[in-house]
This record gives sequence, C-alpha cells and structure tokens, in this order.
Amino acid sequence: MSSSPSRIGLRPHREVVRPEWADYNKHLNDAFYLVIFSHATDHMMDQIGLDAAGRERSNHSLFTAELHLNYLKEVKVGAEVRVETTFLGHDAKRLHIFHTMYVGDGTEPVATNEQMQLSMDMTGPRVAPFQPDVLAAVEKIAAEHAKLPRPAQMGRAIGMPPKKG
Amino acid sequence: MSSSPSRIGLRPHREVVRPEWADYNKHLNDAFYLVIFSHATDHMMDQIGLDAAGRERSNHSLFTAELHLNYLKEVKVGAEVRVETTFLGHDAKRLHIFHTMYVGDGTEPVATNEQMQLSMDMTGPRVAPFQPDVLAAVEKIAAEHAKLPRPAQMGRAIGMPPKKG
Repeated sequence: MSSSPSRIGLRPHREVVRPEWADYNKHLNDAFYLVIFSHATDHMMDQIGLDAAGRERSNHSLFTAELHLNYLKEVKVGAEVRVETTFLGHDAKRLHIFHTMYVGDGTEPVATNEQMQLSMDMTGPRVAPFQPDVLAAVEKIAAEHAKLPRPAQMGRAIGMPPKKG
Repeated sequence: MSSSPSRIGLRPHREVVRPEWADYNKHLNDAFYLVIFSHATDHMMDQIGLDAAGRERSNHSLFTAELHLNYLKEVKVGAEVRVETTFLGHDAKRLHIFHTMYVGDGTEPVATNEQMQLSMDMTGPRVAPFQPDVLAAVEKIAAEHAKLPRPAQMGRAIGMPPKKG
C-alpha cells in the first residue's frame, strides 16, 4: 500500500468497483467512474474541513460547476481503484482540482477527471468565499501541489478537427 | 408532451430522478447527472442501429472516450427530466454528440454534456469504422442537426484565469 511519491498534502481515495456499476462485460460503466471521482471529491473535502461536521458547523459546502472526464483504460468489477487528487488553482470562491484514477498501486492512469468546485453558502444557496479555516487548508495543499507537474489532460476541450487523408 | 422544435432526427430521452440518486438535500447528486446522460446515449444508440440486437448482430458498439459536463441548475428527486441530443460532428470512427437536460417540457437547460464516442469492434475490442447501416443513420441525423445552432457550452475547457480586481 505504498503511496505515490507525487502525493503530498492529500491522502488518496480508495474503493472497490461494485458489481452494480458494471456493464454487461463486467467492466466499470462510464457513468460510474464519476461516482468514484465524486467520492474522491468527498474524501478531499474531509481533508480541508468540509466533512459532514464542518459543513454543518459552517453551513458552507462545495458545488461542482463543471467537469471534464477522460477514459483511458477499462476497469474490472472487484478491482480496487485509487484516486489521487491535485489542486491546480484556487481563488476566494473557486477550487480547480484534478483527479487521476489508478488500479491498486499502479502508476498508469485509467481515467482522469478535472473539476471546478465552487464554495457555497448553503443558506442561499449562493456562491460565497471559503471560510478562513478552509481557505487556509486549501492554501497549504495548493502550495505543495504547485511543485507537481501539470497533468497531461488538464484544460482539454472536446473537438473533432476535419479528417485528414 | 410537445417536443422542442429543435429536435429533428432523434427522439429525446425521458426519465424520473430516483431517490437513490439524491444528496442529503434531495437534489440530484452530481455524479448521477451522468447516469442519466449515459442513458440518453443508450437511447441515441437505439436510434442508429446500435440497440442490443444491433450490437449483438454486428459485434460493434460505442465507447465513451471523453466528456465534458456543465451543471446549470439543481434538479429535485421525482422530477421528470428530458435529454435532447445533437450530433455535432462525426467521421468514419468518431461521433461527437451534445446532450442538453431539461426538467419536464421546460426550455431552460439544467445541465449539458458533450461526449466524444468511438466506434468499437468488440472482438478486439479496438476502434474500428462504423458499420455501413450505422454510418448511414448517423449521416442522416447529422445532416439535419447541421442546421441547428451550436450549443453555448460546446468545446469548453476548464480553467481559472488570474483573479481580477
């Protein structure tokens, strides 16, 4: 259970691919990669003071505004997957994150998921600045992640150039 | 149950938001928007000859390579949602589609999902040209959809410009 050397500041999320998430070939169905990535976002929130108790206390949470997902390899039912999360940027109200999924302790990505998260005051709900303790936790992790290489799939747009040849 | 005038060539997908897809606020959880969009892709496949019988007969299917998702409005458990699908482009092996989700017969999008689909020969599985009947169906719909306006969220990339002010 060694952790990748790139993982500084955030613990990876791990879980086992459930049979009900599979297609007829017993591979993880495309939509359910996002269920796992969503759990990885929850796990990240736990580590910046936005676990259930922190959300209840502060009445603040995160909302997903936008995401991009790249499917690289198939994953089988029963496999344990690991999601490592990198902070790519933030400001007073936004957190730009990047999840990379691996199988077990592997180093070859099977899928990636870039997300833009918004800080929300749930009394609105409305977009609102991070609470000071959450912002401090984000800044500490972001400073460590600034040393990491930018992911290959960061900032991608879907498009189809005119076919050549 | 009137259909939007923009819907030419493909029937919309409709389904009801299930309680098990909700967060603690009884709103559709972010990951489960994609479950519904994935069902909309299945529904599109049924209309181009890639229903279960067509996949079995031809041993060809589609794989999702990449997708982009924009969350615009919250959706409540029990709501009926409608997904309209537009073909944005294709070549011999790729199909670029765009799903727009609405509530009921509404006209204000609640979420959008751009997808790049690859034609697969399942004996590999490997990327392979569309079968002729499928390509003919795709071309017929694509010709109709070429008249439609391009969606506002098409071709987006996630990023955070330096904060101003």
